[in-house]
Amino acid sequence: VPNALTELKARLAQVDDLEGAKHLLGWDQQVNMPPGGAEARAQHIATLSSLAHALFVANETGELLESASAETGELPYDSDDASLVRVTRREFEKMRRVPEELVAERAHAFALAFSAWEKARAQSDFASFKPHQERIVELAIAYAEALGYDAHPYDALLDRFEPEMTSAQVAKLFDQMKARIVPLVQAIVDRGEPVDDCFLHQEYADGPQWEFGQLVLAKMGFDFQRGRMDRSTHPFTQGISPDDVRLTTRILPERLLSGLFAVIHEGGHALYEQGLPPTLGRSKLRSGASYGVHESQSRLWENLVARSQPFWQHFLPHLRRLFPQQLDGVDVDGFFRAVNRVEPSFIRVEADEATYNLHIFMRFELELDLVARRLEVADLPAAWNAKMEAYLGITPPDDRRGVLQDVHWSSGFIGYFPTYALGNLLAAQIFAQARAAIQDLDRQIAGGALDDLLAWLRENVHRHGKKFTPLELVERITGGQIAADPFLDYLETKLSEIYRL
Amino acid sequence: VPNALTELKARLAQVDDLEGAKHLLGWDQQVNMPPGGAEARAQHIATLSSLAHALFVANETGELLESASAETGELPYDSDDASLVRVTRREFEKMRRVPEELVAERAHAFALAFSAWEKARAQSDFASFKPHQERIVELAIAYAEALGYDAHPYDALLDRFEPEMTSAQVAKLFDQMKARIVPLVQAIVDRGEPVDDCFLHQEYADGPQWEFGQLVLAKMGFDFQRGRMDRSTHPFTQGISPDDVRLTTRILPERLLSGLFAVIHEGGHALYEQGLPPTLGRSKLRSGASYGVHESQSRLWENLVARSQPFWQHFLPHLRRLFPQQLDGVDVDGFFRAVNRVEPSFIRVEADEATYNLHIFMRFELELDLVARRLEVADLPAAWNAKMEAYLGITPPDDRRGVLQDVHWSSGFIGYFPTYALGNLLAAQIFAQARAAIQDLDRQIAGGALDDLLAWLRENVHRHGKKFTPLELVERITGGQIAADPFLDYLETKLSEIYRL
Repeated sequence: VPNALTELKARLAQVDDLEGAKHLLGWDQQVNMPPGGAEARAQHIATLSSLAHALFVANETGELLESASAETGELPYDSDDASLVRVTRREFEKMRRVPEELVAERAHAFALAFSAWEKARAQSDFASFKPHQERIVELAIAYAEALGYDAHPYDALLDRFEPEMTSAQVAKLFDQMKARIVPLVQAIVDRGEPVDDCFLHQEYADGPQWEFGQLVLAKMGFDFQRGRMDRSTHPFTQGISPDDVRLTTRILPERLLSGLFAVIHEGGHALYEQGLPPTLGRSKLRSGASYGVHESQSRLWENLVARSQPFWQHFLPHLRRLFPQQLDGVDVDGFFRAVNRVEPSFIRVEADEATYNLHIFMRFELELDLVARRLEVADLPAAWNAKMEAYLGITPPDDRRGVLQDVHWSSGFIGYFPTYALGNLLAAQIFAQARAAIQDLDRQIAGGALDDLLAWLRENVHRHGKKFTPLELVERITGGQIAADPFLDYLETKLSEIYRL
Repeated sequence: VPNALTELKARLAQVDDLEGAKHLLGWDQQVNMPPGGAEARAQHIATLSSLAHALFVANETGELLESASAETGELPYDSDDASLVRVTRREFEKMRRVPEELVAERAHAFALAFSAWEKARAQSDFASFKPHQERIVELAIAYAEALGYDAHPYDALLDRFEPEMTSAQVAKLFDQMKARIVPLVQAIVDRGEPVDDCFLHQEYADGPQWEFGQLVLAKMGFDFQRGRMDRSTHPFTQGISPDDVRLTTRILPERLLSGLFAVIHEGGHALYEQGLPPTLGRSKLRSGASYGVHESQSRLWENLVARSQPFWQHFLPHLRRLFPQQLDGVDVDGFFRAVNRVEPSFIRVEADEATYNLHIFMRFELELDLVARRLEVADLPAAWNAKMEAYLGITPPDDRRGVLQDVHWSSGFIGYFPTYALGNLLAAQIFAQARAAIQDLDRQIAGGALDDLLAWLRENVHRHGKKFTPLELVERITGGQIAADPFLDYLETKLSEIYRL
């Protein structure tokens, strides 16, 4: 006799299948779709979204959750089945408050906005994107109102990405970060002795860049039998299933680091997705714990591993083999310093480890203002530029390098940006634990052996999927809270040494 | 107040969206998917199939069809709305007989079988595919039983591809074809003076082959803003929507004609898909009239256009520019003769225009026997080889070049093969009408002007979508029935001239 839990799992598997299919549609949209396909793609995604939503929030799901909850009442808190019921129930109670029409409207609007954004960005034409941006803000507010919140509508949006976190908690962490990062960046700028990275300003051919990216990915432990690497305007990672994980990069011959660190960053996401265990089934548990925790994995590989000296001890010789002319005479110390160069710049995804956070603070503040209707979309480009001036001391020459640079809003991701900075904090906290557990980690990295690190992450992060909230997971790993100090200590130490502050 | 027709259309649009999404999943499976993705892809496709089926065969659809039928009762037979109701109703009455479990089982089994087939074919290992083939036959029989039929279970399967046609009708047409094609091929073989095509047996580089394919496609009128061309093991065309139509080819440096005619063949399918009008909405009407009619479009371009002398008057100079060495001294007449070379061979998709049909007859007969349980799957390779010997006088050296060569069975397409030969007949009938309507058609083709032909096909075939059955469409175009003589006359005339019979 099938019990409620079994029936619940079958139902959630169908919902998960629709999500997986939607992920492929989204991946294809950015990697392969011809321009004419946009309108139908928007409709397809909207239909999959609304069917998945309807299936998930149906009364039957609620009834099955009730019964399955009783069936699993005796199980330990961290068992797969108890976690499935607990996490799904929380999600069910949130999502059933969102009307199906709003789900379809959102999906449809975002798919259209994405195509409009691609064009607007290419032509640096905010005016053509403005109606989409307005619709995006209105839909975000409607979504927040439907979901419900205590203090600020933004909390409802943030919760979709960081379960159980509030904008007040984020603001507090960000204040601690600002207090140390703003003066740190200022000190570096004031010192006026930039790191020498002139060897980076040469042409690095596409082919060898691609090859090196694949080599690093393979060394990181990415399984090409269960995933692939492609190109897109904005690098991203999409898990169609844990056995079909796809990351993208963009290769710019003039900017070696751009594509290279995109591969490593997305590789960190991709390893997380490939590490989600089959035992968690086709369900909402088989995903990252949160966007911030997901980002912690990409940041950990991108910054704590790949912006370290040991990493380049191993990989620089490989890179030099591919670019003998460009890297002639460049040693590990010089390369290490160059990849850690700090300099205020326009594009978030190409920002260094320190100024990156300033890009996030300003987006968080702009989003708070948009959602609270304290800022009109018409005034958004000016507000953007003013924040850039305030935090980074520079003003974008056009909207392409300003307010139009990010894909997020066009994909409906308001409330997402803070998770990047949270990811930085979590990455430092998690890496500190890994370092404590793996005694000779630096030596291993310097030898190109990254397997122990991956195994530790699999065991402590990946295998749990979404069983725990970010706060629970951090507690399990560190015994404490999300904290800013480990990241700030790490950043100050590294940069003080490089810049002799 | 929304009437029943409006509600019906909204419902059918959702079904169509699920089908469109499924088409993308299928395309990706053959073009991009990493090996590990197969299992989850099978699940995703199965879920989309069963949700689309459930939505379509629901009682609500039946009720809406009833009411919409009354609402459209006064409209002319060929109006879009009357056709929508008529065609959908026929489909509804068929499909509601198929249990949802069987739909999901089929989709799941075929997705797994496809991956198994890819491996089995590469290794020429029928044994590893046998359990899948057995399951495919059992599911085909179960499907036929569910759908219902009068004379032969095969009729139920054929009807899914050729609405309102029976295996008896097909057998009658095939008998007429055999009566003239078998002696024709025999006469060519007996004559013992093969066409000289030794210039084809050289290496043709991948890059220029790809370029030429794109050039021909563009000349045919394929819109690259609303579609794309990729590579896959087995060439195919998939319409995600009429504005996102994707064809694939395979390029073999040793076989220029293989990839080239695949592009033109799939291009004919793709033009049909791109020509389906928006006015037919997201519904079952916005598709080809049948698989046979679809095939008529690919065959028309591949054979009647691109195996003609005028075509190569225009295109040979382009091809010679790309392969100056290989095609040095080859003139239009020599090239025309080479692309029309007739010779019994193992692989259907690379067969010439005459022997191709023999490949179809034998598959049709094998399928009839499998479905009637007159043939065991264990005996299929031997039966295959015996038929090859009987029809073509040759025996495949291995199953890769024998029973494992086609993708169809692994995709659940039993009942499909006859449509290829029907497509040959229809192509000749349709082209004869186009020729009558466009007085200087040969001169246009010789000048590389293919627009009038495409416009005529748009007007007479493409724009109708699935409003009419194949028999109705043929009646509209030719004033008569599907007939074998126009094709047989054309074939005999061309080959008698080339082989001086």
